[in-house]
Amino acid sequence: MATIGFIGLGAMGEGMASNLLAAGYAVQVYNRSAEKIAPLLSKGANATATPKLAATGADFVITMLSNDAVLESVTLGDDGLLAGMKEGAIHLSMSTVSPDISRQLSEIHARHKTHYVTSPVFGRPEMAATKKLWICTSGNPAALAKAKPVQEAMSQGIFEFGEDAGAANIVKLSGNFMIASCMEVLGEVATLAEKNGISPEAVLGMLSSTIFACPMYQRYSDIVLKQDFEPGFKMELAFKDMNLAQTVALKSATPMPFLSIVQQRMLSGIAEGRAQNDWSALSLSARRDAGLPLSRFA
Amino acid sequence: MATIGFIGLGAMGEGMASNLLAAGYAVQVYNRSAEKIAPLLSKGANATATPKLAATGADFVITMLSNDAVLESVTLGDDGLLAGMKEGAIHLSMSTVSPDISRQLSEIHARHKTHYVTSPVFGRPEMAATKKLWICTSGNPAALAKAKPVQEAMSQGIFEFGEDAGAANIVKLSGNFMIASCMEVLGEVATLAEKNGISPEAVLGMLSSTIFACPMYQRYSDIVLKQDFEPGFKMELAFKDMNLAQTVALKSATPMPFLSIVQQRMLSGIAEGRAQNDWSALSLSARRDAGLPLSRFA
Amino acid sequence: MATIGFIGLGAMGEGMASNLLAAGYAVQVYNRSAEKIAPLLSKGANATATPKLAATGADFVITMLSNDAVLESVTLGDDGLLAGMKEGAIHLSMSTVSPDISRQLSEIHARHKTHYVTSPVFGRPEMAATKKLWICTSGNPAALAKAKPVQEAMSQGIFEFGEDAGAANIVKLSGNFMIASCMEVLGEVATLAEKNGISPEAVLGMLSSTIFACPMYQRYSDIVLKQDFEPGFKMELAFKDMNLAQTVALKSATPMPFLSIVQQRMLSGIAEGRAQNDWSALSLSARRDAGLPLSRFA
Amino acid sequence: MATIGFIGLGAMGEGMASNLLAAGYAVQVYNRSAEKIAPLLSKGANATATPKLAATGADFVITMLSNDAVLESVTLGDDGLLAGMKEGAIHLSMSTVSPDISRQLSEIHARHKTHYVTSPVFGRPEMAATKKLWICTSGNPAALAKAKPVQEAMSQGIFEFGEDAGAANIVKLSGNFMIASCMEVLGEVATLAEKNGISPEAVLGMLSSTIFACPMYQRYSDIVLKQDFEPGFKMELAFKDMNLAQTVALKSATPMPFLSIVQQRMLSGIAEGRAQNDWSALSLSARRDAGLPLSRFA
Repeated sequence: MATIGFIGLGAMGEGMASNLLAAGYAVQVYNRSAEKIAPLLSKGANATATPKLAATGADFVITMLSNDAVLESVTLGDDGLLAGMKEGAIHLSMSTVSPDISRQLSEIHARHKTHYVTSPVFGRPEMAATKKLWICTSGNPAALAKAKPVQEAMSQGIFEFGEDAGAANIVKLSGNFMIASCMEVLGEVATLAEKNGISPEAVLGMLSSTIFACPMYQRYSDIVLKQDFEPGFKMELAFKDMNLAQTVALKSATPMPFLSIVQQRMLSGIAEGRAQNDWSALSLSARRDAGLPLSRFA
Repeated sequence: MATIGFIGLGAMGEGMASNLLAAGYAVQVYNRSAEKIAPLLSKGANATATPKLAATGADFVITMLSNDAVLESVTLGDDGLLAGMKEGAIHLSMSTVSPDISRQLSEIHARHKTHYVTSPVFGRPEMAATKKLWICTSGNPAALAKAKPVQEAMSQGIFEFGEDAGAANIVKLSGNFMIASCMEVLGEVATLAEKNGISPEAVLGMLSSTIFACPMYQRYSDIVLKQDFEPGFKMELAFKDMNLAQTVALKSATPMPFLSIVQQRMLSGIAEGRAQNDWSALSLSARRDAGLPLSRFA
Repeated sequence: MATIGFIGLGAMGEGMASNLLAAGYAVQVYNRSAEKIAPLLSKGANATATPKLAATGADFVITMLSNDAVLESVTLGDDGLLAGMKEGAIHLSMSTVSPDISRQLSEIHARHKTHYVTSPVFGRPEMAATKKLWICTSGNPAALAKAKPVQEAMSQGIFEFGEDAGAANIVKLSGNFMIASCMEVLGEVATLAEKNGISPEAVLGMLSSTIFACPMYQRYSDIVLKQDFEPGFKMELAFKDMNLAQTVALKSATPMPFLSIVQQRMLSGIAEGRAQNDWSALSLSARRDAGLPLSRFA
Repeated sequence: MATIGFIGLGAMGEGMASNLLAAGYAVQVYNRSAEKIAPLLSKGANATATPKLAATGADFVITMLSNDAVLESVTLGDDGLLAGMKEGAIHLSMSTVSPDISRQLSEIHARHKTHYVTSPVFGRPEMAATKKLWICTSGNPAALAKAKPVQEAMSQGIFEFGEDAGAANIVKLSGNFMIASCMEVLGEVATLAEKNGISPEAVLGMLSSTIFACPMYQRYSDIVLKQDFEPGFKMELAFKDMNLAQTVALKSATPMPFLSIVQQRMLSGIAEGRAQNDWSALSLSARRDAGLPLSRFA
């Protein structure tokens, strides 16, 4: 079996690395804060001291990091993963980052005779742990083919989007935009019901079990109604993603009014102190605009 | 079995009335243009010459009409259904109309010692024909209880929203707003993909089979991509519904930015000549704003 | 000199009627609440007990009322002004009302062989008192010509917009929309400055004395910065006007995104309890969205 | 008199440099494309071969360039102006750039013992030529005091906004946003008039001579009605400014709905091929959304 360097062991990365170990891969891990590594070491992973060392000797290097800047710093430089990668090795970039950073790193890798495969995921930590992630991927076709078994060891499905390294990032950002739009719709409908003396539970209960009988609407109807905004996925990170999506939209001359609204909603949420809430707290903006107290239970 | 007057035999009404006949009810029908009645007569319905006559002797009178004004004219006046209804009979108002007309007619019925039960439906004509409609209903509890078997004969599920005659209308309008929002999201994402050189089929294909694996997203992804805008549900009627929803929002002081956008999208679609298209043609606005030709296949 | 019936003696009407008296017209006044009439009686006006009596014998009847419904009730019915008007007399409708009510009343007047001249005004009460109003007018050309001296006695300028009785109403609504947009712009810019540690007074002070050196920007910069929201013109009335403008926009298939925003801003302001503030309090929405305390001076 | 280096001789820069020469300053000019320099040489300016040489020996260096990237490249590097500046000399940065680049360059200058004074201008080329510009400025107070005579030689008024080098940029961006909002309002009102059969010339003619009797509204009413979109100020540059303003808004958590709309309007205009039109062509979006032909005169 191949050897895999894994860099970035947050809530998502831990489950993903565990699944690689379970699939029989040798996994050498690196994380900025070392205490996150312990559970993986007990499952057979090897700890390394730098991204470069995590990449040394590996057939694949996976990054699961918080943003463009961290990805860039972990990839480049003397201690960066690129410095450790052997010829022909593949960097699987699985974070939600901009298409631009993917295109830039893809070119740098090509000059190093290594490969960059864009490979962001949909799913929450518990889905990462149970191999239920969805992967969207793009990049060099031969590299994609080689990366597939590794992706399969972490997911329930893989979707390819061509050679443009940025393509899979755009798909991932589009998906997050769709989820944010779902939250906004639910927030508006719940507020309209409440202001008209109708039970929001009854309204969202019906709609999410009939014409919108899908897990996304059911899950977020529940969260919006219970106002259980423990993250999950923090609004400040979701806002970063909306900004990345808007940047893609601006560069490609694509006006997206719903995207502008959810971006502005999160901006207002952050201005009002909800940056650390789950991103579904954007549904609170509809309540506030309608003059309702933020809490339904106060 | 009870006798039912059925007024309004459009694409929806025909299937609904057929199911009532199949359930064993005596059905006396009225439609403004008589030729629509023929298929139902062959199934055992009786034709009547006025709404009043359709209501005469009936235990229930069902209306399935295009808007508030038609509902009002069919209900009131010398030849209106109210003039024919016997004491204790129930008017099941199943069209998508405003909560205000429901509240007004509910009071008028109460003075006549008859009942008004709001009972709009979700579903397309083929769902009406196959008894797959979803019904949301509100009004006097005793009348609701009596109406339930009739509703069951036309639907796969019934959801109650209390005594306010307008409540079920608000739920129906909320659902249509949610569907329109789904169309807008799909239009924006498909356009973003196309402008970035990514296959919209691949993007919507992935997203509607993974995180948004629900029939609504699958159905409208397909329509948006194929641009098959044969109605269905005409944009001019959907626009009427968005206007009704906005009126509810304005009266209840509920700002709804997504609703404002889909309303304005349809307004623009109508201005550009798409009033007779299916309402999903609102997805074209995103293409147009992005400078793409309206047709993907020209 | 001609005789004029004047109906509606609010803050605006009082100044306008005074100017008519000063110009030598005989003025017979009617107001729902009689105490408002006293100052005018002392200037030579005659009190009347009904709109009909105010119109009886008059060459012109002026209405200055709060909305469509009041205008309609004062015009029609047994005690309405129409019942008192002599053949050829002219009804100068000077309130901010919908173009539809103007068109309807215009037809009714034509059947009575009287005239309806639409004639709304721009200006605040102190401008009404000092004959500084601006009038926009439309209707039958011969009637317009006859009405001109009367309009001149109350204004500093008159602008004609053709035969459509609704036209001048649309111009008036457009103007109010422009003012509301000015308020929103000032609110956004002041908030951006404050959140960036720059003096809003300095920013609006510069911009309203250079590139936007016009009274409207200067006046509302001052109000927005001092947060002096004593009405003036109440937000609930301004909201009514935005709704009328939106109705015109919807009927004529004219998407107006800025109008949608100021309408929704006022809706939110009303939801939050600011219906009785001056309409310039819509500028508070920008502060609130940005997480600033509503008051700059708390 | 002091010596001034002047870098960037576009339509604006030429007039500004001419005024400096007229005031008696020694002016040494640099422009990327040398042919622009000829008229100034005939008025007494000296040509230089690099930004560094333009700055060498000068008491002040003025930059008037198209964006952040050009400003940065002209300032830094071996041939950059910073390499030529003597201790205590002042860089007057007069372009419309981001507050961030101003803050960065301000720090770099401080380390070089030179000064960066932010000093963007309002006004068109003919105003630059006739010394009618308005200047907003911020930075080190002592440097501001020294720069004032130079600024006075090019303008009719100077407004100070404190020590933050970015402040004056934010004021400039705010002003451009206000102008764009004015254009959008005029576009919406003109379209509403046209769609209702009312002369847009009459409507904007009245409003811009009464309640909005200010040069900005008069000028752009005229342009919007005549559709004379020869730049002026190109939409692609104005779009850049809206993006800079939005970046400031996002960083400072300030939702600005009007800004979002004008930004998206320009984005759509660019998507539809109007990048090289005057920015007032954003008014065409309202026509297009309303189904009117883009040209009023076709």
